[in-house]
Amino acid sequence: MNGAREGTPARYRARVEYDGTDFSGFQLQPGLRPVQGVLETALANLSGGGRVRVDGAGRTDAGVHATDQVIAFTYQGRLAAADLVEALNGTLPRDVAVRDLRRAPASFHPRYAARYREYRYTIWNGPRSPLRERTAFRVRTSLDVAAMAEAATALVGRHDFSAFGGVDPQPVRTVHLVRVRRAGHLVTVDVRADAFLRGMARRIVAALIAVGKGQIEVTAVAAALGAGRPAFAGAAAPARGLCLRRVALGRRQRRDGEHEER
Amino acid sequence: MNGAREGTPARYRARVEYDGTDFSGFQLQPGLRPVQGVLETALANLSGGGRVRVDGAGRTDAGVHATDQVIAFTYQGRLAAADLVEALNGTLPRDVAVRDLRRAPASFHPRYAARYREYRYTIWNGPRSPLRERTAFRVRTSLDVAAMAEAATALVGRHDFSAFGGVDPQPVRTVHLVRVRRAGHLVTVDVRADAFLRGMARRIVAALIAVGKGQIEVTAVAAALGAGRPAFAGAAAPARGLCLRRVALGRRQRRDGEHEER
Repeated sequence: MNGAREGTPARYRARVEYDGTDFSGFQLQPGLRPVQGVLETALANLSGGGRVRVDGAGRTDAGVHATDQVIAFTYQGRLAAADLVEALNGTLPRDVAVRDLRRAPASFHPRYAARYREYRYTIWNGPRSPLRERTAFRVRTSLDVAAMAEAATALVGRHDFSAFGGVDPQPVRTVHLVRVRRAGHLVTVDVRADAFLRGMARRIVAALIAVGKGQIEVTAVAAALGAGRPAFAGAAAPARGLCLRRVALGRRQRRDGEHEER
Repeated sequence: MNGAREGTPARYRARVEYDGTDFSGFQLQPGLRPVQGVLETALANLSGGGRVRVDGAGRTDAGVHATDQVIAFTYQGRLAAADLVEALNGTLPRDVAVRDLRRAPASFHPRYAARYREYRYTIWNGPRSPLRERTAFRVRTSLDVAAMAEAATALVGRHDFSAFGGVDPQPVRTVHLVRVRRAGHLVTVDVRADAFLRGMARRIVAALIAVGKGQIEVTAVAAALGAGRPAFAGAAAPARGLCLRRVALGRRQRRDGEHEER
């Protein structure tokens, strides 16, 4: 206990970017290297040594990246927000960084405050590209992006997403948009939803890739969704192509003087 | 000696992409991990075991990337070009890949065939960004890109580039263009020249960054160039921001039935 470094406990939120390659995912797992654990260690060192619990908006899996994860924590140290973000980035390893740190209401929890999450999946549909190795999944077969986009329309709306989840007692989610685009060899799939089942984004992408390759019919995606049980043998696209790109915070935060950004 | 895998020696050229982070540069250095050495080992394994010498168009330094390095080698195995490129990529590590492999005239050497080289230097002029850590150099101070572009105009043309080289007995090079652009937090500096002195691209960028920060006058770049001796204490921007993006092959190759691409 270092009294000189302690202040009044206050709630903060921040945006976090990480290269997921060397992380075991966001959530705490003993003996591994989760983003949450690395952030908690850095904060503990800056606030007198006791555990500082870090909450996140999205529990990204091992290898999944984020440019805009939202976290919150209660900090008891004496540093002002601007100094705290500097101190944190000074002590964090190179593959994770904090920005836009600011005060939040005492009750703020990013998981509940998030109005929606948006993930981007990046497919490299071209010759082997070492500089994209960490952040894209290479598909050699030329993908039919129009067929993928057509299949994706079935996903939009409020549905039982058991087809693309594991076994979850509450499998209903609302997908706001699925956007499939090509720019040269680059194919991106953006999925925005109120929330995601575990593995849902990567299972959706695996099914869309199968459509793009002509391995399954365009209508197979809607049919799987309608059946309401795990489909396509649970196939999921590799983690390295996935990135949490945006967490939109909801009205409740705005009323408390927060504003939505980016 | 594996006679069954040997054919008539033939000259080939190819485009090579690499993530320079874990390489000691392009050129052979005993005990280290140069791109040239990794390519030569892969080719030796595919052609009976003897050394296959790989020549490159640009001797990139340790940590410098390439999306479009040009190499050439003489291959004595029996694989056709399409199979050879598959076999090579199958054996090469993840951080280097070969594409556009094709036959070349027996006398083809990429260093002499290159009409010009173009490098891009990537500066991240924003908050710490882990996903850009390997391929960009972060500058915190907001850069005056207009001042950088103005200073850069002095570099274009045929000059003694000793100001931005080490000691070289032939320091005259022709710079075709220097383009400084900003897109949000991203600032890129493209430099195209017939050839580069060792470290020239990174020393030019270091000087332009100093201009962009207001540490030196816009006119200091032209003045240094005119003095014809190493300037700015030899300061060079870090290797990780630099990427060899294009090697344009010249007329000589076109006459032999080759054509310029990309």
